[in-house]
Amino acid sequence: MDPCVPWIRYHGLYKELHINLVWPGKDSVLGVDSVGMISASLVTYASIQALNPDLIINVGTAGGSRAKGACVGDVYLASNVAFHDRRIPIPVFDMYGIGSRRTFSTPNLLKELNLKVGKLSTGDSLDMSPQDEASILANDATIKDMEACLDVRRTYACNEIFCTVFPYENYGDGKQWFKEMGRPASQLTSDPCFRDKGAAVAYVADLLSVPAIFVKAVTDIVDGAKPTSEFLQNLVTVTAALDQAVSQKNLVAKLISRLTEGHILLLMGSTGIFLLGNTGW
Amino acid sequence: MDPCVPWIRYHGLYKELHINLVWPGKDSVLGVDSVGMISASLVTYASIQALNPDLIINVGTAGGSRAKGACVGDVYLASNVAFHDRRIPIPVFDMYGIGSRRTFSTPNLLKELNLKVGKLSTGDSLDMSPQDEASILANDATIKDMEACLDVRRTYACNEIFCTVFPYENYGDGKQWFKEMGRPASQLTSDPCFRDKGAAVAYVADLLSVPAIFVKAVTDIVDGAKPTSEFLQNLVTVTAALDQAVSQKNLVAKLISRLTEGHILLLMGSTGIFLLGNTGW
Repeated sequence: MDPCVPWIRYHGLYKELHINLVWPGKDSVLGVDSVGMISASLVTYASIQALNPDLIINVGTAGGSRAKGACVGDVYLASNVAFHDRRIPIPVFDMYGIGSRRTFSTPNLLKELNLKVGKLSTGDSLDMSPQDEASILANDATIKDMEACLDVRRTYACNEIFCTVFPYENYGDGKQWFKEMGRPASQLTSDPCFRDKGAAVAYVADLLSVPAIFVKAVTDIVDGAKPTSEFLQNLVTVTAALDQAVSQKNLVAKLISRLTEGHILLLMGSTGIFLLGNTGW
Repeated sequence: MDPCVPWIRYHGLYKELHINLVWPGKDSVLGVDSVGMISASLVTYASIQALNPDLIINVGTAGGSRAKGACVGDVYLASNVAFHDRRIPIPVFDMYGIGSRRTFSTPNLLKELNLKVGKLSTGDSLDMSPQDEASILANDATIKDMEACLDVRRTYACNEIFCTVFPYENYGDGKQWFKEMGRPASQLTSDPCFRDKGAAVAYVADLLSVPAIFVKAVTDIVDGAKPTSEFLQNLVTVTAALDQAVSQKNLVAKLISRLTEGHILLLMGSTGIFLLGNTGW
């Protein structure tokens, strides 16, 4: 058995920033994309330990609520994240289960990019049970995904890392992002297990809370007739549109220019992470 | 903000074996026990990285199915684990979501200990929605918990570690186990963050598959009238009974004597982990 995890890391340099993109890869037994919160939390935890980023950008797909005005192809920046499938009906444990948190506030970026804004709710199922629906309503969520809300928190040390995780292989493989930023993909180094990367041993047991933002493109309408078949139908085109939107609006370059100004750098997951501060971006 | 994770590790020596017990601790914001799959997967991942165990024993509580013959206070050894709240209705992804796996087979131990045997199903909610119930039925599960089925896999290197995670503070804090094994608790060293422990840097991004067994005491009947209030009512007495059962039956000592014979050692989580082989225990 190969002891290696399926996670793929691409890395390179852009404007003196070390850029990392991490993709959770495929389940080694079943060959499908490693979706869901456990995979997202583990790959994010290990990425934070190995790369010590200052900010995470989570770009991926989501279901959208028609009742909240979402349409297929919309690209959202999430203002809040919460869980909708961790029901623990005991006082205080209930709040722990929901785990509602504000994302990192980036008002200036938001103005420039002109994206939609909405709350994001996370669970481990692609479908939506009546209980999930009630929780998503209670979370006041406009978009729903399977990775965003992770229980990873800590103040962070500085570093020069920008890192991203793509949940689906057909949502590019990271190389596209470098192309959009004017870097030939051939300059990327693929590092399937980041075997050669060092996380400080002393940090291996730490949980990090790293500021993060969430950019999510809507593949399907969760309160519509057939969200799952819509998801499959739209995944390729919507992620291509997300690629294009990111490219056209130059989101990554703008983020990075902000980061350079703010001396803050990025790690991104198929995962979500919430943020604790606001550096005035 | 304290960058430290809430995880607590106790460690000591027993019959020349290095013994570790890891408890996920309390949520630093809300003060409740860090239950659920994300916490369990992260603490297990970090424990495996830091301690490199050969086998995990997960001792904790579970709901039991009356229809399958479970009663409050029963102690089960799980034969299989699977998820019941990861519904992904796309071919192959559906199997990935369910994630059914056999646990490590220990027929000789089972004979000696005379525990009940049943399949274990895991989800992030304490309650059980109709969808969860259907999935638990489909998983053919007798017991239901919130931590057992983790997506952590890898072949393992050898080491001399026995490590355990307790999901609830009132289920002892690890010290009781050492008392049962005849060691004074004062010989334990509490190490809140295992800060002084080293994981090999090269392994930080690896997912490990470590053999594991699951010992679960039934606190409530999930297909009964009031599983949540039953859970609260019975938690203290059932975990005390589990302590006693483990002590009376000398489970840990027997496990450890088996391990010594088999040159296999243990890590245990509030977490579950499934096993890939059978060394003939």
